[in-house]
Formats: sequence, structure tokens, C-alpha cells
Amino acid sequence: EWGKGESWGDVEADHFHSGETETGMSRLSLSDTDRQARDWFHRTATELGCKVHTDAMGNQFAVRPGLSNDAAPTYAGSHLDTQPTGGRYDGILGVTAAIEMLRTLNDNWIETAYPVGVVNWTNEEGARFPMSMVASGVWAGSISVERAHDLKSVIPSSDTATIQTELERIGYLGEVPCSWEATPMAAHFELHIEQGPILEAENRRIGVVRGVQSYKWFTVTVRGRDSHTGATSFQHRADALLTASKMILASHKVASKHGALASTGILTLKPGSTNTVPGFVQFSLDVRAPQDDTVEAVESECRSAFIALAAGEDALQINTGCTPSSRQCSVEWRTDFVSPATHFHGDCIACVQAAGSHLCGGGEVKDKDIGSWGKLMTSGAGHDSVYTNKRCPTCMIFVPCRDGVSHNPAEYSSPEACEDGANVLLGAVVRYDKL
Amino acid sequence: EWGKGESWGDVEADHFHSGETETGMSRLSLSDTDRQARDWFHRTATELGCKVHTDAMGNQFAVRPGLSNDAAPTYAGSHLDTQPTGGRYDGILGVTAAIEMLRTLNDNWIETAYPVGVVNWTNEEGARFPMSMVASGVWAGSISVERAHDLKSVIPSSDTATIQTELERIGYLGEVPCSWEATPMAAHFELHIEQGPILEAENRRIGVVRGVQSYKWFTVTVRGRDSHTGATSFQHRADALLTASKMILASHKVASKHGALASTGILTLKPGSTNTVPGFVQFSLDVRAPQDDTVEAVESECRSAFIALAAGEDALQINTGCTPSSRQCSVEWRTDFVSPATHFHGDCIACVQAAGSHLCGGGEVKDKDIGSWGKLMTSGAGHDSVYTNKRCPTCMIFVPCRDGVSHNPAEYSSPEACEDGANVLLGAVVRYDKL
Ligand SMILES: NC(=O)NCCC(=O)O
Ligand SMILES: NC(=O)NCCC(=O)O
Repeated sequence: EWGKGESWGDVEADHFHSGETETGMSRLSLSDTDRQARDWFHRTATELGCKVHTDAMGNQFAVRPGLSNDAAPTYAGSHLDTQPTGGRYDGILGVTAAIEMLRTLNDNWIETAYPVGVVNWTNEEGARFPMSMVASGVWAGSISVERAHDLKSVIPSSDTATIQTELERIGYLGEVPCSWEATPMAAHFELHIEQGPILEAENRRIGVVRGVQSYKWFTVTVRGRDSHTGATSFQHRADALLTASKMILASHKVASKHGALASTGILTLKPGSTNTVPGFVQFSLDVRAPQDDTVEAVESECRSAFIALAAGEDALQINTGCTPSSRQCSVEWRTDFVSPATHFHGDCIACVQAAGSHLCGGGEVKDKDIGSWGKLMTSGAGHDSVYTNKRCPTCMIFVPCRDGVSHNPAEYSSPEACEDGANVLLGAVVRYDKL
Repeated sequence: EWGKGESWGDVEADHFHSGETETGMSRLSLSDTDRQARDWFHRTATELGCKVHTDAMGNQFAVRPGLSNDAAPTYAGSHLDTQPTGGRYDGILGVTAAIEMLRTLNDNWIETAYPVGVVNWTNEEGARFPMSMVASGVWAGSISVERAHDLKSVIPSSDTATIQTELERIGYLGEVPCSWEATPMAAHFELHIEQGPILEAENRRIGVVRGVQSYKWFTVTVRGRDSHTGATSFQHRADALLTASKMILASHKVASKHGALASTGILTLKPGSTNTVPGFVQFSLDVRAPQDDTVEAVESECRSAFIALAAGEDALQINTGCTPSSRQCSVEWRTDFVSPATHFHGDCIACVQAAGSHLCGGGEVKDKDIGSWGKLMTSGAGHDSVYTNKRCPTCMIFVPCRDGVSHNPAEYSSPEACEDGANVLLGAVVRYDKL
């Protein structure tokens, strides 16, 4: 009387299994594999002649001395953690290219005027501990170290860790305070894959990143009433999942209207039984747009629409065709993370432009004059550079990635693109050092 | 820059915690607490003079001898498992009232013509192992014991058990084959709370259940593409959760149109990160209606709508206002469980009517003639009586429950209603025994 399909269990197992056998990377922050990556970072940078220290957020800083060491180092770096089903480039390219920079300086007996450094930031992804760029945020003084340490894993049923307990467990809770005062930076340069389709589509080698779009993360909680799926009419239900589904659709409609983005990546429900209408749903909402104002507008329109939908009203024509319910759900809205639009520093942008032009043959560039090799662009994704920019001149370098795919094991940038990026990174750091 | 709200972890913990301190019951099938309930059943029925045996599905059968033991016993019973956040009546009332029946027969030195029995069916809810009434289904020969034994828990990440491993673990894998031939029944009577609002609203004491509506359970799998929430435009996405949300809404619209029910109680997604558009969503779909034809119609319209929505088409006007995506999702549809409309046996219905009339004072009743005390009704929920009805005359008795609430810790039937039900159950069994 029914199909012979797999059970829930099989499908889950298959899905996890395939994640491990593909081309991607699954290195959640502060996991055992993250510890291995950190050990590699420490060993390699030390072998290259750097002094390495770790701060209270597990951020790793490697410093190569300059002719004078009276000023703060110019840093290059990014992060080594990934999404649960991430790629091999997002973050990783920025750290490995910075290590390569050290090697190139050594191999060519180059002495910089001031020290240069390489940094590996903790939990940039916000995938395991749900605040992105949290450790650069603490470094910049925007997030308290206590709040960051107490951050819990998003999978509490099987992973009860906090940032602090995991830092202790893997031995990376450093003694140096996490702050821009304890570890000052003269500047911060970050190489990253674009994570979008523009450079590839326009056949450009380098993105000169002038800023990062605005974004906010929210947690939305919908409460209805657990009830029997077979014995409870639509009128008698307070269906938290049906209501949450309408909210997800509403957020998409509102964001579409504003040319913004709205996304839900996590959704959990209770009690989780085929024949019980769920009385509890919680989901994440990630809203982004180039301007802070647009993010605010999407937030406020979503809030109103969610309240109306929870009350059973036909907000945004979503309920049309549904049997109305006489029972209401409640909705709670919590702001988890705010990252206003970021504008990088003109001096650093100029260094990246000059290095790109030098590599790609665009001749001398003036402000806003960029050759066919590159493009001035705004990042859709957040990066630790958002926070370093609050405390020191900062800029980023993008290289094209295939089909714009990221946060996916299929993420790919060609060896040539990676080499271009590493050369521009080196060129920008050396140029900044000379300023 | 953000609220000081709880993390995901806190909310989950709170939710679970409150489940334990309320008035309800959380006794998932074949758990340690289910073992305790089974031990109680075995001990109590044995003390009341019954022979008790357990079959290969863990069903427990207690038999009280009659004057003649040449014919199969007339059974009363139901189930002792509950939903994860269930009540204290659903199933439990039917077993405890049947035990009370044994006690009343003993206390009054009543000898029945033939044996009477009490049954506790395994995993009726289908909440932990996702087929409802699976053990009576095996008994009736509708489900193979192998398929039932291999059924996996719906929470595979933290619960890797199957029915068979749990039966072994708690010591309830009986040696008697699970079948209507090994454990024959002359008839099956089941007392249950209504799980709906009708008896309470119409101020009636007893529901004489003439049948159970048709239902089917499906698992729907939507596959899109994991991608970055900040760097992937709506056009470039294949958002499995947005698509699943539209499907849930579509199922509600289709069911509304047909006067049927469609419900999603389980939804899981991958990878589960705030800033990754989910590439994988799986959800349950429970479709019910009085007629098999209606369930088929809802199924086929949902299938078409889901395919269209996965392809990005504006099925049922759901996409209106959304930015279209140039990428498609795929959708798979699996049938997990089918329970056609059930019509109980006239002889048993007559016994329940006569017992109800005797208790409530309606005088002599004829076929279809029911007093103001009761109502002939169709059950919205499935029950083990659906399967026993395939192999022996069967009928059910409903009693009112507060506000129609079930599968919820707030489930409640008054002591008077429970007493009414137990009296009608006893009366119906004794009347059938005399036939
Ligand atoms: N680059 C990147 O994937 N950062 C993660 C933070 C975010 O943008 O959500
Ligand atoms: N009575 C009851 O809750 N049965 C569970 C099976 C179902 O109807 O889903």
C-alpha cells in the first residue's frame, strides 16, 4: 500500500556522506579539523620566521619584522573556517595567499620598511556560532568578548559547545586580550573569491572592493498550538509552520520589491511528528542591501507583514485561497547581528588599484580610473575587513569564481585567478608599507 | 548593535523543559517510559487473572477466559504510546478503560460466554516510527513484519533505533508471530477521546463511530543548490526552503478547495546555516478527507503544483510578487503510508448504540436511530480499529474532549466523560459476547 522508499534516516545519512566525499570542505569553526588548520598556520608562519601569537578569541597573528619595528604591521589575512558544506576557497585563499606572501618576501630577501603580518580570524562564517565575523568584531571593540565567548552552537541538540568551551578544548584560548589596542594593525588587506558572478561574466581578473553591503540577522519565533493533523479543522488550527512558510514567502516578496535580499537558512520546529500540527517554529532571517536604509525598510515591512500573517490577515496577498483560521499565532522578532554598509579606505583602495594595474598592465592609474583588467565593486558577503576597517585602513581584493557559486562544495577559482589575487595582495601590502 | 536575546540553544532547552513540566505525556513508542507502561499492563492484567502474551511487534494481549473457550476473545483496547508532546488520554484511555472492564467483570463475578481480551498496540501514533497503526497493520497482514521492524526513528541524528532494535532493547520482542491468525479476535472495540470539537459543542456524551476518514502520508524532498545568502541574487538561487514554503502553502490551498486537510509536521533542511541558502529540504505531508477520491484529488493536484513551483512557475498564484529564479529545484514525492476510508461493522455499531442508549436512557434503539445522548460520527484520526476492522467486526466509542484539543499537553476529558466511555465499552463488549 506504500512505496519502498528510504526512511528519513537514509536520506540524512546519504546527504551527510556525500558532503564528505565531494570537492568541498567542512571545517566548522573550533572543530578538530579547525585545530589542525590552526596548528598548520602556527607551524608554517613560525618556520617562515614570524612570531605568532593567539588572542582571547583564538585569532592568530603572525608578524615578520621590518627594518623598523616602531610602527604596527601591515596585515594580510582572512579565515580558515568554512560552512558545513563549504568550498576550498572562501577565506582559505586569503590566508594561504598571505602565507605565500611571507614566503615570497623571504625568497627574494625583501626587507619591508615596517613589519608585515598574517592573520587568521576565528568563526568568520558565523555558521557554527551564529554571528559572522565575530572575532574581528571583538578585536574592533564592537562586540564584547563575554558575549562572543558565550555564543552557542546553532545545533544545540548534538553540539552544546560555546565559543569559549571550544577554544579551551582545542587549546586556542590565547592569553593576549582580543583588541585593536593589544594587537594593532597599520592596515588590513584581504584577498577573497568574489562569491558572485560579475568578474567571470565581464571577464575581469581583479575586483577592487570599495565596500561591503549592509546586513542584519534576525531570529523569528512563531508560536501556535500543537494539534492533531487528522482531527483539527483548518479553522481550529494555529499552525506555526504554515504561518512561518507564509512569512518566508513574504520576506522574499518584500525584498524583491526593494531590490534587496532576504534568506532563511535555518528552520527548526517542534514537536516534529507527521500527525501533529507544529506549535513552534523558529527560523533565521538574513536581510541585505547596499544601503542601510533599504535594510531598515525591508526589516520594518517584514515585521508588519509577519504580524499580519500571524494574525491570519492576507498580507501581501499570501493567504488568498487558504481557509482562514479563527486562531492566531504569535510572532517574536530578535535582532542577532547588525553590519552596516562599509566603505573601505581610499589609501588601501589606491594600493590595490596600483598593484592590479601593475600586474595586469593597465599603466599608471588615477583615483576611480580602473583598467579593463578590474572592477571597483561592493561585496555582497560580509568579511572580517568590515571590522578591521573600523580601526585601521582596509581594502579587499576579489578574484573571479566559477558561476559565482560559494558556500557550496562546487566553489572553484582557477589556479591562474588565485595567482593573480596573491600577486595583487603582495603588491598592495608592499605599496602600503612604502606609504 | 544587536539585542541581548537568547541563543538558539536556550530556546530549544526551554521548549523541551516546559514539555516535561506540563500536564501532558511524552511517551514515545518503545522508549524506556513505554517499557514501564508495558510492565504495568502485563502485571495488572496478570493480577486480574488474565493470560498475557506479546507478539513479534510488541503488541500485548491479555485474555480472561469465558465459559467456553472454543471461540476467539472479544477484545477491548487501544495504545499506550503518545506524541512527543502528547496528552494523557489519546490511546491511554482506551487501554485503562479496558483494564477497568476486566476489574468490573471480576468484581461482579461475571462469566462471559466466550473469552474477553484487552490489547495494547505498539506505535499507534507513528510519531517516533513514521507509520501510524503499524503494529495492528502487521497483525492484519497489511504491512510485512520485516518492513515494520526496519522502520527507523524520525530523528536519525540523535536516535538511530529501528522498531526491531528497540523491541529487543526493552525486552518486548515477543515470540508469537504478529498476525490475526496467531492471535485471533472475535471483535475489537476501542474507546477513545474524540480529538475534535463536535461532541462538546453539541453537548453529547457519546460518539458512536461508524468509520474513519481516508488518509495518506508522503515525504517530499526538494533539492536546490547551497549558495551564499549575501552574494547570490534571487535570480541565481535554487532555494529549496523558499520552494518548500510555497509547496506547504499550495497544499493548504488545494486542501481548502476540496474541504480536505493537508498538514506538514516535520521539516528538515541542509546545511542549516544562517548565511547559506539551503539546497536540501525534506518535509512530511499528511492529507486527509472523508472519501478516498478526495484524498487522491488533493494528492494529484499537490503533485502538479509542487512540480510547477519547483520549476519556478506561478502555480496557484503563489509566486506573484517574487523575483523569478532562472534556476530550478527538483522535487521527489514518496508515499509512506496509505489508510483508505474505513467503515466499521454493523453488529459492533449496534452493540455500541445499545450500550450508549442503556447508559444514557434513550430506550430501545433501532438502526440509525440514535438518541440525543450520542452521535454517529466519522473519526478524523486513524486508530488501530482501522486495521482490526479488516479481520474482525470492529467499532469505536468517542467521548468529548475539551475544545477538541489533542496531540497537545492540554488534552483533557472530564472524569465523567471517561466514566461514560468506560461504561459503554463494557456494555458493548458484553453485548457482543452474547451475540
Ligand atoms: N565571505 C563570507 O562568506 N562571509 C560570511 C559572512 C556573511 O557574509 O554572511
Ligand atoms: N488517534 C490518533 O491520534 N492516531 C494517530 C494516527 C493518526 O491519525 O495520525
